[in-house]
Amino acid sequence: MVIVEVSFIPIGVGTSLSRYVAEAWKLIEESGLRHEFHSMGTNIEGDLDEVFDLIRRCHERFFEMGAPRISTSVKISDRRDKPATMQEKVNSVRMILNPAQ
Amino acid sequence: MVIVEVSFIPIGVGTSLSRYVAEAWKLIEESGLRHEFHSMGTNIEGDLDEVFDLIRRCHERFFEMGAPRISTSVKISDRRDKPATMQEKVNSVRMILNPAQ
Amino acid sequence: MVIVEVSFIPIGVGTSLSRYVAEAWKLIEESGLRHEFHSMGTNIEGDLDEVFDLIRRCHERFFEMGAPRISTSVKISDRRDKPATMQEKVNSVRMILNPAQ
Amino acid sequence: MVIVEVSFIPIGVGTSLSRYVAEAWKLIEESGLRHEFHSMGTNIEGDLDEVFDLIRRCHERFFEMGAPRISTSVKISDRRDKPATMQEKVNSVRMILNPAQ
Repeated sequence: MVIVEVSFIPIGVGTSLSRYVAEAWKLIEESGLRHEFHSMGTNIEGDLDEVFDLIRRCHERFFEMGAPRISTSVKISDRRDKPATMQEKVNSVRMILNPAQ
Repeated sequence: MVIVEVSFIPIGVGTSLSRYVAEAWKLIEESGLRHEFHSMGTNIEGDLDEVFDLIRRCHERFFEMGAPRISTSVKISDRRDKPATMQEKVNSVRMILNPAQ
Repeated sequence: MVIVEVSFIPIGVGTSLSRYVAEAWKLIEESGLRHEFHSMGTNIEGDLDEVFDLIRRCHERFFEMGAPRISTSVKISDRRDKPATMQEKVNSVRMILNPAQ
Repeated sequence: MVIVEVSFIPIGVGTSLSRYVAEAWKLIEESGLRHEFHSMGTNIEGDLDEVFDLIRRCHERFFEMGAPRISTSVKISDRRDKPATMQEKVNSVRMILNPAQ
């Protein structure tokens, strides 16, 4: 189980990238993998191979949609000493800030 | 007005980084800048100089807390052809996915 | 053919990461893929599947070496409108700066 | 003294970005700061404030050149337990790979 953040920049398709991001969001939702969309990318939780495969599909989809060039950034957070989901990562910070809760 | 994503990795302080992330969250909240915490970083909205200054303060704070080494990643999204807040960026994708709303 | 930049941060193994980077360099050299080592990461040229597979092997190797947690950053530069090797990318900038050469 | 990697993606200016990268290279060379250009970005060595200021100037220059939107990625490697230049970082890996040299 890893947490992967991905963001895509299609290049040479003008200034607005929303149409591309929307397509990626569709593929990510269809994947069934747990995810968080945010304003600078998407965080996805899953098996590393599954997540790579999903990113690969989004990346290829952009070329099919007409982008001539793409810059795709991926950050993998992988820890094996204890379970680490997106929720647990955020919770462990919140518990330090608000220990009473 | 820019949107900046930042994530910090203190190195040489063991496996758990939550204590450091919590400290950054405090400084970010105290800054009064609009922000989104998520499981892979924090997105901050503001004037580029203000945001740089805030990131600099978090970065320095980690050394004060004892980290001998830090890797800080920053991604700046800056567009000047139209207003672009974190909220508008996400909305423009949602409107493509759900045009009826 | 894509160009991929990768950098690895093993977490929870102390301050010096050289032993881990050296191991990654060995795997990258053994892969036979064209690459550039630099002070902030490694750029690798190849088929996207081949490069992903190589990154995956480095990432797993670090866990075998004892790292409990790893942050791996990957940036994929993929253009299909014209051939784009690492050399050509740098050359096209140099030709603008020194058109006489 | 920090090492900073920076890469710029102007958005909405077509597929070729070389003209923009060339302009950044000029500003970086004029800064007098030690640097390495490579196919995925530029590594710069210097005082954190100096380097931020230089990145800021490149970023603004791109808007002056006509880009409506820019994505700028910055990674700061800062260690204070020992001197760490770009050269020393690479050397410490090479010494592990070739201890006899």
